[in-house]
Amino acid sequence: MEKPRVAVIGSGSIGLLLYAYLKLANWPALLVTNRPEQADHLNKEGLTFVAKSGEHQPISVTATPLSSFYAEEAEVGFITVKSFAVKALLPQLQRKKWDGLVFFQNGMTHLEILRQIPARAICCGIVEIGAKRESDVRVQHTGDGTIWIGDMVGDSKNFDPMWACLHNVGLKAQKVTNWRDKMERKLIANAAINPLTGLFRVKNGALIENQLFSLLLKELVKEACVTLGREREVDEHLAYTRAICDKTANNLSSMYMDLTHHRRTEIESITGYLIKEAAKKGIEIPNTSFVYHAVMGMDEEGRKVRMG
Amino acid sequence: MEKPRVAVIGSGSIGLLLYAYLKLANWPALLVTNRPEQADHLNKEGLTFVAKSGEHQPISVTATPLSSFYAEEAEVGFITVKSFAVKALLPQLQRKKWDGLVFFQNGMTHLEILRQIPARAICCGIVEIGAKRESDVRVQHTGDGTIWIGDMVGDSKNFDPMWACLHNVGLKAQKVTNWRDKMERKLIANAAINPLTGLFRVKNGALIENQLFSLLLKELVKEACVTLGREREVDEHLAYTRAICDKTANNLSSMYMDLTHHRRTEIESITGYLIKEAAKKGIEIPNTSFVYHAVMGMDEEGRKVRMG
Repeated sequence: MEKPRVAVIGSGSIGLLLYAYLKLANWPALLVTNRPEQADHLNKEGLTFVAKSGEHQPISVTATPLSSFYAEEAEVGFITVKSFAVKALLPQLQRKKWDGLVFFQNGMTHLEILRQIPARAICCGIVEIGAKRESDVRVQHTGDGTIWIGDMVGDSKNFDPMWACLHNVGLKAQKVTNWRDKMERKLIANAAINPLTGLFRVKNGALIENQLFSLLLKELVKEACVTLGREREVDEHLAYTRAICDKTANNLSSMYMDLTHHRRTEIESITGYLIKEAAKKGIEIPNTSFVYHAVMGMDEEGRKVRMG
Repeated sequence: MEKPRVAVIGSGSIGLLLYAYLKLANWPALLVTNRPEQADHLNKEGLTFVAKSGEHQPISVTATPLSSFYAEEAEVGFITVKSFAVKALLPQLQRKKWDGLVFFQNGMTHLEILRQIPARAICCGIVEIGAKRESDVRVQHTGDGTIWIGDMVGDSKNFDPMWACLHNVGLKAQKVTNWRDKMERKLIANAAINPLTGLFRVKNGALIENQLFSLLLKELVKEACVTLGREREVDEHLAYTRAICDKTANNLSSMYMDLTHHRRTEIESITGYLIKEAAKKGIEIPNTSFVYHAVMGMDEEGRKVRMG
């Protein structure tokens, strides 16, 4: 059987990393960027992949801007755009029936619309590894960990050889049956770490080193657990969240970076999901609610800056 | 009767402004600074006073550092240091019985310790005007408004001529009987405006222009009202607070400035006062509690930066 061609849509850190590993595994892949300049740049210069060891490797790239991308060019799609950008992709994703689509977004709000896309299999990719885009044409695999793959719609066993190939070249990708569990676990951690580091403009480590921030971290984890019906697991999720802060102590979270650079944050798909769930269940989550409005408000300020 | 000599202790914006007006009124006054360099600088260069009209006026200064100040040098003390610094002044203030002391702090936590100071009269000065220290030797009277004077201990009618003199040269200073009411009104506004502008790094105006920040402003005003037993007055206090944001739309709050410059904030005397009151009464104030821990945590981060 021929290898299905993969279109990696989105060229942020995860998109570039996945593309690099696909090419290292000799898998046919096309990179779809949002900005035409980035596609040009990548086609001309290729991509520099920096492994965890620090070793550099040049990767030749076939890139195309989203505006001239045809769904017919691939059988499988890896969707790595930010969660709030998924909706805008729908018309292009609905042009044909895909063999498989894998969604790599933070948060959970995008799950609602996935069923509108025709595909034999739709998976989630839960990224528990570190990747850093150092420039438009350079990406680093910064941290150990695993990408968990869950079947959300249909059955993706046809693509098991693909994951095995990626695994062989160093990207730990693993199928998981309890994907919602894994996704919620990541959501809980993100809902605590991201808004706090963004609001306080601190590195992830400060949330466990600073006693007062630590207290707020705990409150947010607790409220997220209650919202998701996991109140019995608070200690476990707090330990998981604190372990992330510890492991990534010197990192600046994506929300920190987005706020600093006046870019739109993912607050809606992370904390916003909890706000909606809590409202449905009539649960009060005051700390989560505070950071939701705070970051939404800062997003709004950022928009004003962007608009000049 | 001879004019009682006034020692203005503290040389921030309010200290410099009061000192300038005392000298404009030809009142004998001594300026007590924390840093010896500032006293030197002021003694040599004098103070430049910028009126609301923009007009400049040179003021000759007699300044002394706190370390070499003798309480015997004055009959009246204007205490303009930050609220958290009042405690450290106690030994010096307790050296003699003052004719009168006026305390100009934000917040209300310092009230507890005032009764430990021997004085015929102790007043509060509630500052509802704008002043800006542009440098160690330059202060501007930026905004209209009044300084309200309330008798907290004893009777200060002996000093009515002093207030009248200040009034004559352009500083609206007015006696008030319901000083606790005025103080709480200012506390409520400060407890909302200060932490939010500090956390979000925005000008005061953003708290009414940005719908999401505006919502949080309202929550904080509401919680402060409930804490102080003023739940029926929420609308009134919200209107007052919003009016301040409007009038000072382009200003950066003191807490914003303190956080930006890694200086200790007044969170403890403003929001901390509400936290203690709410705890006594068993009232939950989650939004106030969030900003309290957040700003306390940021203070802690600032301390780390200061310590290198």
